[in-house]
Amino acid sequence: MIPLTPAGPVTWPEGKRCAVAFTFDVDAESPLLTTDPAFADRMGAMSHQAYGPLVGVPRLLSILDELQVPATFFVPGYTAHRHPEPIRSIAAAGHEIAHHGYLHESLVGVDEQTEREILDRGLRALQEVVGVTPVGYRAPMWEMNWHTPKLLAEFGFLYDSTLMDSDHPYELAVDDQSALVELPVSWALDDWQQYCFVPDFSGTGLIETPAKAIELWRAELDAMRDVGGAWILTNHPFLSGRPGRAAALREFIAEVCAMDDVWVAGMAEIAGYVREQALTPRTLTRPELNIPAEP
Amino acid sequence: MIPLTPAGPVTWPEGKRCAVAFTFDVDAESPLLTTDPAFADRMGAMSHQAYGPLVGVPRLLSILDELQVPATFFVPGYTAHRHPEPIRSIAAAGHEIAHHGYLHESLVGVDEQTEREILDRGLRALQEVVGVTPVGYRAPMWEMNWHTPKLLAEFGFLYDSTLMDSDHPYELAVDDQSALVELPVSWALDDWQQYCFVPDFSGTGLIETPAKAIELWRAELDAMRDVGGAWILTNHPFLSGRPGRAAALREFIAEVCAMDDVWVAGMAEIAGYVREQALTPRTLTRPELNIPAEP
Amino acid sequence: MIPLTPAGPVTWPEGKRCAVAFTFDVDAESPLLTTDPAFADRMGAMSHQAYGPLVGVPRLLSILDELQVPATFFVPGYTAHRHPEPIRSIAAAGHEIAHHGYLHESLVGVDEQTEREILDRGLRALQEVVGVTPVGYRAPMWEMNWHTPKLLAEFGFLYDSTLMDSDHPYELAVDDQSALVELPVSWALDDWQQYCFVPDFSGTGLIETPAKAIELWRAELDAMRDVGGAWILTNHPFLSGRPGRAAALREFIAEVCAMDDVWVAGMAEIAGYVREQALTPRTLTRPELNIPAEP
Amino acid sequence: MIPLTPAGPVTWPEGKRCAVAFTFDVDAESPLLTTDPAFADRMGAMSHQAYGPLVGVPRLLSILDELQVPATFFVPGYTAHRHPEPIRSIAAAGHEIAHHGYLHESLVGVDEQTEREILDRGLRALQEVVGVTPVGYRAPMWEMNWHTPKLLAEFGFLYDSTLMDSDHPYELAVDDQSALVELPVSWALDDWQQYCFVPDFSGTGLIETPAKAIELWRAELDAMRDVGGAWILTNHPFLSGRPGRAAALREFIAEVCAMDDVWVAGMAEIAGYVREQALTPRTLTRPELNIPAEP
Repeated sequence: MIPLTPAGPVTWPEGKRCAVAFTFDVDAESPLLTTDPAFADRMGAMSHQAYGPLVGVPRLLSILDELQVPATFFVPGYTAHRHPEPIRSIAAAGHEIAHHGYLHESLVGVDEQTEREILDRGLRALQEVVGVTPVGYRAPMWEMNWHTPKLLAEFGFLYDSTLMDSDHPYELAVDDQSALVELPVSWALDDWQQYCFVPDFSGTGLIETPAKAIELWRAELDAMRDVGGAWILTNHPFLSGRPGRAAALREFIAEVCAMDDVWVAGMAEIAGYVREQALTPRTLTRPELNIPAEP
Repeated sequence: MIPLTPAGPVTWPEGKRCAVAFTFDVDAESPLLTTDPAFADRMGAMSHQAYGPLVGVPRLLSILDELQVPATFFVPGYTAHRHPEPIRSIAAAGHEIAHHGYLHESLVGVDEQTEREILDRGLRALQEVVGVTPVGYRAPMWEMNWHTPKLLAEFGFLYDSTLMDSDHPYELAVDDQSALVELPVSWALDDWQQYCFVPDFSGTGLIETPAKAIELWRAELDAMRDVGGAWILTNHPFLSGRPGRAAALREFIAEVCAMDDVWVAGMAEIAGYVREQALTPRTLTRPELNIPAEP
Repeated sequence: MIPLTPAGPVTWPEGKRCAVAFTFDVDAESPLLTTDPAFADRMGAMSHQAYGPLVGVPRLLSILDELQVPATFFVPGYTAHRHPEPIRSIAAAGHEIAHHGYLHESLVGVDEQTEREILDRGLRALQEVVGVTPVGYRAPMWEMNWHTPKLLAEFGFLYDSTLMDSDHPYELAVDDQSALVELPVSWALDDWQQYCFVPDFSGTGLIETPAKAIELWRAELDAMRDVGGAWILTNHPFLSGRPGRAAALREFIAEVCAMDDVWVAGMAEIAGYVREQALTPRTLTRPELNIPAEP
Repeated sequence: MIPLTPAGPVTWPEGKRCAVAFTFDVDAESPLLTTDPAFADRMGAMSHQAYGPLVGVPRLLSILDELQVPATFFVPGYTAHRHPEPIRSIAAAGHEIAHHGYLHESLVGVDEQTEREILDRGLRALQEVVGVTPVGYRAPMWEMNWHTPKLLAEFGFLYDSTLMDSDHPYELAVDDQSALVELPVSWALDDWQQYCFVPDFSGTGLIETPAKAIELWRAELDAMRDVGGAWILTNHPFLSGRPGRAAALREFIAEVCAMDDVWVAGMAEIAGYVREQALTPRTLTRPELNIPAEP
């Protein structure tokens, strides 16, 4: 067995120390419906999720426009079908739209062919509704299979943003011929853990203040500036689009933009910059439970 | 399929920027009994819930009287039957009493006829005990069915306060003839998530300080003043009636009343003001899982 | 049906505004063993619980001695059998020992005769090991049956400390002849919710700082001083006996003792003082699900 | 039955008041795989865990090197097999490597012979990969059986670090002939409760800030300095190796090293120092549910 090797350092443009991406997962109704289609009957829960595209997205776009920050929106195909105008407005504002499944389907235990169909369905929805072919992918719930990278390469994706084993982006080996740029994420850089409560679906009722969430994210960013990696924040419009949270996020984005050692960019732009560095791809392997000792 | 449209802006009286309502759900024993009638045998849990009408309501009424603030109390019919004096004292103090089910029944999966009977039973209880016919409704656990608005219109309600897809009140289309004013709520503006622990019923044991709860609510209010919507706080007398929480809430209410851009009013008054604006009703639709692409 | 009436005000000695009791539930191994006797096989969990009598109790006694504060310890009979010396040292230091079941048995669904046997077993254990006959009782998990007060009266208890429907102590009617003094508690005044984590038994992993716990308790005390009731804090030696928590509690107790409007006393002393006021007993009734309207 | 006796005081070198150990459990993939081997199929979860050895360990080693602090790493044998280089680098940097099971196996309900095989498998892995024979042991999830100490003595371990019934290290009696030094731990001194979230495995989503975690640990340390015991912190590289947490930990370690009354040492060194004091071994006994009264 070949031991895993950690990702190496990368460089950033113009001597910046750290890349920053503000990303938004526009889940809307999809995570609930994929868990149990009967959630469609719950008018209250559906309205809670619809807040994301209907109110959160316009508010967040307005903040991004005011601060002139490019962002990346991961959009399940189903969200594009149900909420076409908000999703088109994201593209119209010049932000990147990336793939996030069709109905936010969990990939746990999903076979290759089914997963291929989900990828295709999501791509077609974004093509139909927004006319874009995304170059980036993020697996729902940040969970995917060992065959997923091969499928992503088949579909021509440039990058994935699902894994958590590095502070630095890297080239993820798919096979001898191809690789994906991996832009890694972290549970600590996600608003879901701070804010999400939907009865019978997610959360225990814990709802933190925006100040606490920002304090957590700032601590990680300050340290990432020394580390030199990519700090990728994930927010959900149905959560961080609420007035108090959006206001706190706006202040924080402004603070980050004023850091002169930080490169704020869209995910595709970051992935493209990493790709140009022609890094040696890392091979990740499924853990075996009966490992022979190394020679 | 017609895509959902977001609620538009509304205006507030005398150039105020934001409407504020302090609402209280006087659940008392009902949420436990509706979950499992055997909770009636638990003298401890029943005493925890009875604290609401017995101690919390008089304390909160005294605070509202001192600060001269009108409030709205959502009262399950069962609470009125079991605790008639505290509920009558709410009405006697001039506050609004609104509908909150009979036994705080979950509406998940409930058919139209059963739901009609629950609505009727709740109405009759409030009529019998307090002599009021409420114009407002809030579904227990903020969850209702797609047929609920039609039933509410049938019973002649002016407004509902259950949905979460907007910062602004709106007219919710029921059919071509009628609409309900919707006064939307948010999980972040509810004391249950901050304070509630009842073994075998709700909560993980997390109990926050009043200072933290108020910090969360203040952050949302400060931002809502810029947004121009309605900031609707939901407290439960069995929780926020406790001495330390009521004292913190009192200070916060006083702080809010001193904001000169905020209109503090009862829910019926807010709904009436919105109704006068003759807004175009919004049509909300149940998500379909097989959505055809838009033409 | 006779509606419940709230407890009325009480007076405190020497014009004090508020009574304070520091109480300690010396649960040790019992709550785990009563939930599942197989916990006895878990040497780690048993050691976590044994910390209470072995380390927590001496440390807390030393603090109480230093500050000259009388306290009340609720001791399951099983704890006295397994840890006789620590329990005797409580009595030797002049503190009150009260009843807390034999094996911290849940009383949910327990019939009268079984409950009578548990009460008897707990009493005999305290008599055997410490030579005391307690005058106070607290039900495990703060949950008891509607027949429990009658049993407590049968056994001659002066007071109970289990219910949560009042800020003020009151006389709880048992029958026409007898009553118990009730000294009410609150989930917000319990260290379990702030600190307890035992895998497969209790807690989600949330462990708060002592500063946060004290802040919560102080907020309730400051308000209770205005309310004029009894502020009864419940700590567990296996939790609050840990060094950092005990140090914070020590500082807080000292702070409370310096408040000149507060009467710090043991529970039996408080109950005795309440008894002398010859309050009219309150009748509490089990909620019925088919309540006829009042005449 | 012989009642348990608490551990007595110990002394520390050069008049120090308190011993401090920074320990790291390098769990990596093992806790997930032992719970359900199907976690091996989850590329996302596996990458989250691999972060520990790949990124966290080098970062933490660098901090320990900068501050010249000796630390102790508890390493499941499986982690050594899957991540040999990071584990070797720990030893190469002069830190102690100790036993933490083979696959982080839960010992709940495990019989003596199976547990012996696990101990042997873990020892052989550390011997094969790193060439060390550990003198210390910590049971996964801090849970072990009453027969575990005997097995640890059989295998020649000097110390165990699993139990929670003391602030002070002690000699744990195994039989008339032998004893183990016990270095006790506490749930409050563990980063898992503050930071860990892995869907379908652990955590509710609560993720605290590094500042809150450090505040909790500092409160316990400040008090332990007065108590004179051993303050043993447990961190996990997959959690505390993240940039913001590692930066906060680095500052805290520096702060601790500057305390002139504190002895910072590896666990084996602390255990050796305790062993030299020839303390009378404590006998711990399984709680019996039918305890006869003491004579």
